[in-house]
Amino acid sequence: MIPAGGVGTRLWPLSRANAPKFLHDLTGSGTTLIRGTYERMAPLTGERVMVVTGEVHRDAVLRQIPELDDHDLVLEPSPKDSAAAIGLAAAILARRDPQIIMGSFAADQVIAPVGAFQEAVREAAATAATGKIVTIGITPTYPSTGFGYIRRGAKLEIDGAPSARQVERFVEKPGEETAQQYVDSGEYLWNAGMFVAPVSLILEHLRRAEPELHAGLTEIAEAWEAEDRTAEEVMARLWPSLKKTAIDYAVAEPAADAGDVAVVPGDFTWDDVGDFAAIARLNPAEHEDEMTVLGDQARVYSDQSSGVVVCDTRRVVALIGVQDIVVVDTDDALLVTTTDHAQAVKQAVEALREKGDSDVL
Amino acid sequence: MIPAGGVGTRLWPLSRANAPKFLHDLTGSGTTLIRGTYERMAPLTGERVMVVTGEVHRDAVLRQIPELDDHDLVLEPSPKDSAAAIGLAAAILARRDPQIIMGSFAADQVIAPVGAFQEAVREAAATAATGKIVTIGITPTYPSTGFGYIRRGAKLEIDGAPSARQVERFVEKPGEETAQQYVDSGEYLWNAGMFVAPVSLILEHLRRAEPELHAGLTEIAEAWEAEDRTAEEVMARLWPSLKKTAIDYAVAEPAADAGDVAVVPGDFTWDDVGDFAAIARLNPAEHEDEMTVLGDQARVYSDQSSGVVVCDTRRVVALIGVQDIVVVDTDDALLVTTTDHAQAVKQAVEALREKGDSDVL
Repeated sequence: MIPAGGVGTRLWPLSRANAPKFLHDLTGSGTTLIRGTYERMAPLTGERVMVVTGEVHRDAVLRQIPELDDHDLVLEPSPKDSAAAIGLAAAILARRDPQIIMGSFAADQVIAPVGAFQEAVREAAATAATGKIVTIGITPTYPSTGFGYIRRGAKLEIDGAPSARQVERFVEKPGEETAQQYVDSGEYLWNAGMFVAPVSLILEHLRRAEPELHAGLTEIAEAWEAEDRTAEEVMARLWPSLKKTAIDYAVAEPAADAGDVAVVPGDFTWDDVGDFAAIARLNPAEHEDEMTVLGDQARVYSDQSSGVVVCDTRRVVALIGVQDIVVVDTDDALLVTTTDHAQAVKQAVEALREKGDSDVL
Repeated sequence: MIPAGGVGTRLWPLSRANAPKFLHDLTGSGTTLIRGTYERMAPLTGERVMVVTGEVHRDAVLRQIPELDDHDLVLEPSPKDSAAAIGLAAAILARRDPQIIMGSFAADQVIAPVGAFQEAVREAAATAATGKIVTIGITPTYPSTGFGYIRRGAKLEIDGAPSARQVERFVEKPGEETAQQYVDSGEYLWNAGMFVAPVSLILEHLRRAEPELHAGLTEIAEAWEAEDRTAEEVMARLWPSLKKTAIDYAVAEPAADAGDVAVVPGDFTWDDVGDFAAIARLNPAEHEDEMTVLGDQARVYSDQSSGVVVCDTRRVVALIGVQDIVVVDTDDALLVTTTDHAQAVKQAVEALREKGDSDVL
């Protein structure tokens, strides 16, 4: 299942409420992130793919994944964080077959090479089949303070999953010093939010930690799978009252404490494309003193400049003497910043909302 | 007379072939440069104002100066440099009255305070009445290598023009060292291309230096002033063959050599708004770490940024962590550069022309 939520505020004005991050091609691959996610999964899952996304994105998601059956496109009336989205998918699938092993892979991540990813998913599935919630942890390449970490434990001996290990615990985003210790120790992996697990085990932990949320999702799932077309009414009635919480708190961490979580290390590059600095990183210019240009119809002139320009219009963009610049050109909003200030885009969006410029958010 | 020519390439994409510099408000005054020029002159000249501009700018100029009589709006079929434009104005005025003293003040200059300018023009007119071509030279405030200089000579003793002096010679744009010597000596003034002179004296020198150009302009002027409406036909026939040359070479320098040129120093600030660095200079932000914003409908968010943003659209522009930046946002083209690179805009325009992007030039 693919949870397709989150606006990607730090990618404004490209990413916005009605055109979130996962609907964009941020890697110059010619493919949107959600389509890339689908294509990465399809060789493993065939047509058994479910997407959970906001109601407003229904048409856009179907344009990206026309293969999706209506029954496998779950539409949230409003954002409720990951526990509700993933829990609902688990509840629906459990009604189809309680034995199902589900993988959850967010719609807005960039992964390469695909082969290494698929191998990790296969190991995770084999491990999940022994009754584990299995995260795929990323081998850290630098001491990031922007990700949570997974402390790995003892090696598990599972057929088809030679690298699977027990998870000792999840840890929150660390400070710089702690992050460095984590990386040096070799005992920690980045928590990329990817996991494979029996739906029954997910639901069991959800029921224990968040019984009301579990009950609500179960009722919605029953209506979803019923033939009597009451799903819309039930969703409209129950969804607004559901608790907003992350799957990490509602399932993963309590499950780890109970010894039910394993990890398979992923030796692939992984990026959640959090800001324009990530886009510059993922789309390196060929030469040092050069601009990275994204956009099918880009008309860019660059002189003595470096950085990234994202063209969502047909306008000519001329860049002269600007280093590490980030220019994002859209019909109704323009962003000019630098890769060093990419994180500050979030504050800009908040300030624009306060100023009453929500029409461009 | 107001010569209104020149695209202002370094001010692209604001200034362009069909919307040149003089049709913009570049000072945040609420007034276009050409209207500002007219209003600066009107208290001295009343309605006796002539504009020479390109045919394509006819309607735009009339919108800016509705006071203009059709007979005083001379339209060039193509750009022919300043000798043809100013020479034609002189030839037309000479047919109206050979005694006329004409002042020539380009449409795209910024001058303050107006009182000091008008006082200099009055002195220049009094000096011109004694049979001189009188330039108004600007007292240099720094050793500019971007302007030509005027070497002043002996003081003239003229009623109503206490500061008038003979001009020894004009000198081309100097190197840095020479410019510094000029400024230190106190003997040099910037050549701002402003002058006041009897039309007969202008034409006399033009006839000597460029007899063919003089003959062509005389014939056009005759047709212009005739009642038989042949002006258009004569203009179309003669104009294309006229020599392209600057008034400096065709009149001012030979006249100086002949001892016919005087100078009145102008103790006012003067800027020809040559590039976006000039716009930043002319529109200082109130606080150091702040953006200068030009544009009636600007919607700008600025954080940790300085420089100038010119908004020719209603788009939201967000600037984060960019220093001394220049952003010019128009419907079909966007420029991002720094005040230090403002001169390089000219090369960008040339490169875009070569690339075939002339639609935005």
